Amino acid sequence: MTVHTAIETPANIARLRAFVSDLADLIDQGHDEAAILAGGRVLLKNLIATDDWLPEAFARPSPERYQQYLLHCDSAERFSVVSFVWGPGQSTPVHDHTVWGLVGVLRGAELVESYVREEGALFCTGEGALHAGEVEAVSPSIGDIHRVSNGAQGVSVSIHVYGANIGAVKRATYAHDGTPKPFISGYANSHLPNLWDRSRS
Amino acid sequence: MTVHTAIETPANIARLRAFVSDLADLIDQGHDEAAILAGGRVLLKNLIATDDWLPEAFARPSPERYQQYLLHCDSAERFSVVSFVWGPGQSTPVHDHTVWGLVGVLRGAELVESYVREEGALFCTGEGALHAGEVEAVSPSIGDIHRVSNGAQGVSVSIHVYGANIGAVKRATYAHDGTPKPFISGYANSHLPNLWDRSRS
Ligand SMILES: [Fe+3]
Ligand SMILES: [Fe+3]
Ligand SMILES: [Mg+2]
Repeated sequence: MTVHTAIETPANIARLRAFVSDLADLIDQGHDEAAILAGGRVLLKNLIATDDWLPEAFARPSPERYQQYLLHCDSAERFSVVSFVWGPGQSTPVHDHTVWGLVGVLRGAELVESYVREEGALFCTGEGALHAGEVEAVSPSIGDIHRVSNGAQGVSVSIHVYGANIGAVKRATYAHDGTPKPFISGYANSHLPNLWDRSRS
Repeated sequence: MTVHTAIETPANIARLRAFVSDLADLIDQGHDEAAILAGGRVLLKNLIATDDWLPEAFARPSPERYQQYLLHCDSAERFSVVSFVWGPGQSTPVHDHTVWGLVGVLRGAELVESYVREEGALFCTGEGALHAGEVEAVSPSIGDIHRVSNGAQGVSVSIHVYGANIGAVKRATYAHDGTPKPFISGYANSHLPNLWDRSRS
């Protein structure tokens, strides 16, 4: 790891710092989930409106599978911000989250299949594309099960925010017949971007 | 930057994660500065009691000057945790902090000269050594100006906690005659350790 290479962290990383600060303020106000999702949606839409701030190391695809890079985790694990990087043809299994989440596409597109689970069986309730600049929400109260695929020919990047340290949450993937399998997603990265050096600005 | 090299992050980084969580809890309780310093001192003493958790990249000296590596910054910049790494003979200028701070020695020793400033002039009020496992506090209310030097023959490492994003705080260094010079300390590192991957534990 090159810890001294400031050049790897774009100056515009300040956009991500502002997003984290604003989201912390929103959550500190003690709102319910619906208000956090509504306010967070505005903040995330603003963050992904400009694609000049994500350091390249956190936008790098892997030929093997989609990547989840942690960008920031709140001190009390009240929320986490993650970049998802999709290579051509890559997709998640059908999975749940168990906490609120916001998904915003920064680059490319995502295809989302939404599901409900009734009496142990899965039913697809819709399919749609999410393009750069668009945001969608998940949570147990508004629909928590989906399958996400890269919706572009090249690499796609989306920014996800969750109401927990998502890499540590015990949740499930689902087989076609609805059988759940426990999983904890973890993170691909052992190092986070340093958002906090204001001495250069 | 090798973002995939999990081996660089010791499993015992969980100690730092627990420290961050516990400090966030303490601060969330809305205590005054004296109570935060008292409670934080206990937490920091516990963190530095075992020297098995700091990744090597954040304990690396520079031949040029002492290094300040940000380890974690709170989402709302209520606090930051920094490793200071001292090569042989290295020292800070006389400086202030303007916020509360706790300094704990993880490895080696620090020499601390404390100062007060009266009518623009500096007066040294004491000199002492801080050894591995020991903690000391600073703040405008209890004494905020000091000069710190490496107190060991080899490399020393101390863990500092401040009541702000210290790398962004506008503060001052002081010349021998007490003349202040504004400074913002910044950080040596463009990447932070990922404390938050619990999927491996
Ligand atoms: Fe998902
Ligand atoms: Fe100091
Ligand atoms: Mg926080």
